[in-house]
Amino acid sequence: MEGHGAYNRNSQVQASGIAPAIGSLEDAARAVPIGSGAAPLVVADYGCSAGRNSLLPIGIAVRALRERAGTSRDISIVHNDLPNNDYAALFDLLANDPASYLGHDPRVFASAVGHSFFEQVVPSGSVTLGWSSWSVQWLSSVPMEIPDNVAIGCSEDAAARAAFARRAADDWATFLRARALELRTGGRLVVVTMASDDSGDFGYRVVVAAINKTLRELAETGFLSETEVRRMVIPTYGRTRAEFVAPFGDSARFGDLALVHAELFFQEDHIWADTGEGRDAETFGARWAAFSRASVGPTLALFLEGGTGDPRRTEFLDRYEATMARLLAAKPEKSLMPLVQIVLEKRGAG
Amino acid sequence: MEGHGAYNRNSQVQASGIAPAIGSLEDAARAVPIGSGAAPLVVADYGCSAGRNSLLPIGIAVRALRERAGTSRDISIVHNDLPNNDYAALFDLLANDPASYLGHDPRVFASAVGHSFFEQVVPSGSVTLGWSSWSVQWLSSVPMEIPDNVAIGCSEDAAARAAFARRAADDWATFLRARALELRTGGRLVVVTMASDDSGDFGYRVVVAAINKTLRELAETGFLSETEVRRMVIPTYGRTRAEFVAPFGDSARFGDLALVHAELFFQEDHIWADTGEGRDAETFGARWAAFSRASVGPTLALFLEGGTGDPRRTEFLDRYEATMARLLAAKPEKSLMPLVQIVLEKRGAG
Repeated sequence: MEGHGAYNRNSQVQASGIAPAIGSLEDAARAVPIGSGAAPLVVADYGCSAGRNSLLPIGIAVRALRERAGTSRDISIVHNDLPNNDYAALFDLLANDPASYLGHDPRVFASAVGHSFFEQVVPSGSVTLGWSSWSVQWLSSVPMEIPDNVAIGCSEDAAARAAFARRAADDWATFLRARALELRTGGRLVVVTMASDDSGDFGYRVVVAAINKTLRELAETGFLSETEVRRMVIPTYGRTRAEFVAPFGDSARFGDLALVHAELFFQEDHIWADTGEGRDAETFGARWAAFSRASVGPTLALFLEGGTGDPRRTEFLDRYEATMARLLAAKPEKSLMPLVQIVLEKRGAG
Repeated sequence: MEGHGAYNRNSQVQASGIAPAIGSLEDAARAVPIGSGAAPLVVADYGCSAGRNSLLPIGIAVRALRERAGTSRDISIVHNDLPNNDYAALFDLLANDPASYLGHDPRVFASAVGHSFFEQVVPSGSVTLGWSSWSVQWLSSVPMEIPDNVAIGCSEDAAARAAFARRAADDWATFLRARALELRTGGRLVVVTMASDDSGDFGYRVVVAAINKTLRELAETGFLSETEVRRMVIPTYGRTRAEFVAPFGDSARFGDLALVHAELFFQEDHIWADTGEGRDAETFGARWAAFSRASVGPTLALFLEGGTGDPRRTEFLDRYEATMARLLAAKPEKSLMPLVQIVLEKRGAG
């Protein structure tokens, strides 16, 4: 990890993209059955990272549930991510940030589960409301090297594109099966994630081009080896809306999960807008570079020869960010930023 | 924190001390009501640290509950510690260690709560079985500087001893009130923790003497300032059995908690025994020094002028360990190691 809260400080791009889906989450919080017993209502947050982008949506979900359940009902929030996530930063944020939902409601309890969401991570039938933001685009692993690009969305290699598409389809089905086990009957899951538009365009072309060029420059100066650059891959995949709904078929059902809503939408490029549509090129470059360092830098650094312990790690991230900033400032361009939101409901016994 | 898993590698002293209490935990797992519904059984582990010493007791509790509840009942383990605990090490251990209880039972789910156990940390009435090992001796904060010692157990200062005793009494009552809220009716909590014997002796005299001498040496060489050494305190308190049972009074009740069992016992000094009762002085010193670095080193380092960011942190810990090893090797001596185990049951409505 890149130190306490580095991701929290540089994740505004994700935050600005989830606003439409937060409305769906609030609707779901008003629609799910909450029963009349005293058992805690459980809200699961799949892919929480260090938590910054969870505070707003989870806070809204908590308030909506609280209005329905009364003041004495306990609400349990389960934040899930990989085992090596920065949970200390998450718990610090939850305890101390003014925007933390914990500060506004004494009957809310937070916990974390450090386990891949491609398996079941909480007890069966326990989740009333699920949320996953900007996480499902990450694949379970890299299916193969991409010969011509760091990102499959910008690759022209047919074999690599096919291998990534297969892995993405398998991972989505695996993710859904695990969530189907975890949801209570009538419980809902709202997913918002990076996607490709209906023509298959993943977007972010100027940013991905800068990443490729940055890595080539770092190899040309000898800082990275050719082997390292060849192996570097961002293991994300932007599924199209059609790929997201495929498992549900004509019945809009996948096992116990019913498809309630699936929508492609486009996030505004706030960095482009905030920097005068290219007029403040330096800030444009600096902001995208900081975002890229925080979001994909740690992943790329894993491909350094020495892995997580490679002594060049911090210098790699510094050089990566500096080169990205220079390249992006040289030719500011607006990015297409496709997202998909999906709303699912657990049906049948559970 | 001192890097991934440092505590896990140097916590054998604690591990060897909890064996008698593990029997009480297993008994409690066989005694608690588990109901006939499908709701998960919840086991809470208060003060988990990086988890190494939790694997054995929690694994035994899980097996005892599993025998009673059948193969399909979900069991949820909640590991609790402070927000800045090394949760990544905990989740890595749970996922990958051969001794992890997760590997032996697919219907067990683990989570973490990074929040002080002096407040309620999980929903009301949710815990079937609670466990707390080697944690309750830590006070919520330092009530005052100790003029003559780093450890209150070896201080002769009456005012400091009184202030620490009051804080320890308040903290124990606060801890109990929070657990009373969390336990289900009939649920049990087993606590094993450092204590003082009936004469008020906290033990560990040779080790504490070495810590005091080490800090004085580091001040004499100019590595630590006099102010730093004066402020350094280990905020633990060894309550006597009488202090542990005091809140329960003649009725053996404290609110909804009933006192089932309270016992002073003495841990064997395994380091002394393993090193030939002083014959291998170098190993004796090295093992106690490594233990002391892992258990109290990070706490002492918080009192460095620069706090958690002090640039001398690693060198302080290195010098601390080296000096401790030298001093302890010079005069090996067996330590008195008093522990108390307490078993509590939640009564009444809840």
